[in-house]
Amino acid sequence: MTDLSPVLDRLDASLDESLERLFTLLRIQSISTDPAYADECRKAAGWLVDDLRSIGFEASVRDTPGHPMVVAHHDGEGPHVLFYGHYDVQPVDPLDLWEDAPFAPSLKEVGPDRKIIVGRGSSDDKGQLMTFVEACRAYKAVHGKLPCKISILFEGEEESGSPSLKPFLKENAEELKADFALVCDTAMWDRDTPAICVGLRGLVGEEIMVKAADRDLHSGFFGGAAANPIRILARILSDMHDENGAVTIPGFYEGVEETPPEILKSWEALGQGAKEMLGPIGLSQLSGEKGRSALELVWARPTAEFNGISGGYTGEGFKTVIAAQAFAKVSFRLVHRQDPDKIRTAFRDFVKARVPADCSVEFHPHGGSPAIQLSYDSPLVTTAQAALTEEWSKPALSIAMGGSIPIVGDFQSLLGMDSLLVGFGLSDDRIHSPNEKYELSSFHKGQRSWARILDALTKNPPRG
Amino acid sequence: MTDLSPVLDRLDASLDESLERLFTLLRIQSISTDPAYADECRKAAGWLVDDLRSIGFEASVRDTPGHPMVVAHHDGEGPHVLFYGHYDVQPVDPLDLWEDAPFAPSLKEVGPDRKIIVGRGSSDDKGQLMTFVEACRAYKAVHGKLPCKISILFEGEEESGSPSLKPFLKENAEELKADFALVCDTAMWDRDTPAICVGLRGLVGEEIMVKAADRDLHSGFFGGAAANPIRILARILSDMHDENGAVTIPGFYEGVEETPPEILKSWEALGQGAKEMLGPIGLSQLSGEKGRSALELVWARPTAEFNGISGGYTGEGFKTVIAAQAFAKVSFRLVHRQDPDKIRTAFRDFVKARVPADCSVEFHPHGGSPAIQLSYDSPLVTTAQAALTEEWSKPALSIAMGGSIPIVGDFQSLLGMDSLLVGFGLSDDRIHSPNEKYELSSFHKGQRSWARILDALTKNPPRG
Repeated sequence: MTDLSPVLDRLDASLDESLERLFTLLRIQSISTDPAYADECRKAAGWLVDDLRSIGFEASVRDTPGHPMVVAHHDGEGPHVLFYGHYDVQPVDPLDLWEDAPFAPSLKEVGPDRKIIVGRGSSDDKGQLMTFVEACRAYKAVHGKLPCKISILFEGEEESGSPSLKPFLKENAEELKADFALVCDTAMWDRDTPAICVGLRGLVGEEIMVKAADRDLHSGFFGGAAANPIRILARILSDMHDENGAVTIPGFYEGVEETPPEILKSWEALGQGAKEMLGPIGLSQLSGEKGRSALELVWARPTAEFNGISGGYTGEGFKTVIAAQAFAKVSFRLVHRQDPDKIRTAFRDFVKARVPADCSVEFHPHGGSPAIQLSYDSPLVTTAQAALTEEWSKPALSIAMGGSIPIVGDFQSLLGMDSLLVGFGLSDDRIHSPNEKYELSSFHKGQRSWARILDALTKNPPRG
Repeated sequence: MTDLSPVLDRLDASLDESLERLFTLLRIQSISTDPAYADECRKAAGWLVDDLRSIGFEASVRDTPGHPMVVAHHDGEGPHVLFYGHYDVQPVDPLDLWEDAPFAPSLKEVGPDRKIIVGRGSSDDKGQLMTFVEACRAYKAVHGKLPCKISILFEGEEESGSPSLKPFLKENAEELKADFALVCDTAMWDRDTPAICVGLRGLVGEEIMVKAADRDLHSGFFGGAAANPIRILARILSDMHDENGAVTIPGFYEGVEETPPEILKSWEALGQGAKEMLGPIGLSQLSGEKGRSALELVWARPTAEFNGISGGYTGEGFKTVIAAQAFAKVSFRLVHRQDPDKIRTAFRDFVKARVPADCSVEFHPHGGSPAIQLSYDSPLVTTAQAALTEEWSKPALSIAMGGSIPIVGDFQSLLGMDSLLVGFGLSDDRIHSPNEKYELSSFHKGQRSWARILDALTKNPPRG
């Protein structure tokens, strides 16, 4: 067993150097959505390979049909972890809203004891991934080895939908499979409060097209006699929620578990109620299942949402038409053990039962992924939580996210790996927007946090 | 009192001459929607004025901001009737689908004892309006006078929305007001069966826009917590019909009367059931109020229809968005004494009661007109019905129409006049399409029908 405190000291002493390295990486214009920056993406991958090799990783740039992956391995004792981050960044327009050039990173003092790193990718995700690399570097420098066996996967297409990721994971499953994954692409609760994301909702998307007459009809001649697809569609959508905001599709809540009371209590203490969550967007009332808090609704409850609807005449003025067809885009956020395929089938049955015999309905699937849910008391979570709490001198929160992070689902389904989601971003980091920043405290204490987490997970391995 | 039979004989004898006159009018390219044909519209108006003067009418071309009106008066004893028709015609594209030039009318033999008049405007509405003019001409020729006091209004903008009609009626109300109006712009039930249109449904149009958050939201972050305007809208629309297809808006059926059983029976005998009405458009089931026949539903029952709906993402693929707003275009077909203003207010109250307190709804009115309904046993109807039955040797039907004819509402609301709707068009006349035609039998027996109707109405005046 190695000693942790000299590693932490080393991270404190080398902060300026680590900043220099991050700045070098931030200067590379690795925008993945624009083919004009393909060479820059490759350059970023190459820089990372070189840097990882300097720590002793066996690292390589791995080609894909898109931008390359970076894969690196370092032997060690104890558990085997796979760390994931992405080196590509968002485009920079509108350029004129940037105070400094997006790829000319700088450190700015913005308050007493508060400095920020400004530049595209500082928070999403170069700054975050380097916190882990720096932790490894310090460990290696102090102890001549890493605390455990570590593999690294850096992607270059996260901001453009990760088209190469699944095939790459499948082709290299043997090589990439570890005991669990560490993913650093999420945020803290606030500047002082670290958080682990324990749950991510899954998603089922479905487009339904209701067809009635074989042509558009004049409502004067047929109104009151012929089926109106908008009316049928409205009835279907309306029937999907009961008066208490619960989804009425039979079997929808199968596999859904209640969140532990102590977790709900910790969320309540965050003071993010209906007013706080909805006030900034001009609303005040929760629309979901009655009797549940705002955070529980978006973090831990499944939903049915209507994302789009269209039918009939939608232009200026009026047309007394009965449309031949109407469609809606419907999606479900899933939690726990809800099965995307079962939900899709149950939804389709629900719809079919509401379409008159002389009308028809077509379904077009749009993706499906299950929820990701670590047990709140799993050793992986509690060990990391304790390490974070120690570093930040404030209890680390177990939170969830309403959206999905595809990589986590892929690690689960393709490599059979749980992921621990720890990140040091903040909601005001302006990721995807001009003047993106990363707190210097996130960068510094993020490095120390990873050192602590690796140390703790090695000393109390959650598996094996 | 004058004798009818010599008038009918005269009409028989002068059929060829009346056809020549109609052809002359059909050659005038009076397309009202295209400004390039403005002179042709004026030419048609001028020709009609000259023709009416030749019968002894005091006739004039009356300017409007658009195409001119033709107004004519002829003194007489007994009731005062106002006859309405329109001299403008639909555009002719697609030109290449016409077998002959649209403004080169001809008479064609299409079967044993069946000839048709082919040309743009032959049925809609030049051929129809000339049936009345020819009846007047024959009456005058035989008796030196008309059977009653007759005024005529020919419009030149019917095919382009009649923008000048209401102002013209208002400005000339004194001059145009008569005991009742005769309108010749409708159809027979079939080639052998004359029909009087006794009811026209009214219309209330309304666009509703439901607004929730002040911006589009990511359904991952807000799904389950924030109001979804599509869900609110679907609930509103769905609530508007009960399980039996009846409209649920409080007070909606106020003033709605049941159609007399003998009328329903006569409609049933027409053999136009769900199968016959809906089969040609690919449907088979009636969607309106249960227990009512297809014809009753479209002719005599009020409806709520959804003519358009839109909200959220409606493009290709999928976007997990919760829209800020969604809208629907809703219309109501009205019957009997339903009050458009009351219906609009009741609908708005119904909607408002279903919009959550933190959301809002905007209403945009799109027109409103009450239904037109003559009593099936009013003297105006029964007298004309007897005259038509006599001419066609087949009982004339009292039917209704699901759509509206604005002029009839305007006569009612602006001049306080009932309208008798008698026309000799057929559903296969291809009005608004290439190769428009009018049956020669319609033209000939139409003239005789008007002579009979005028005679009967003079001898049994429904008013005064």
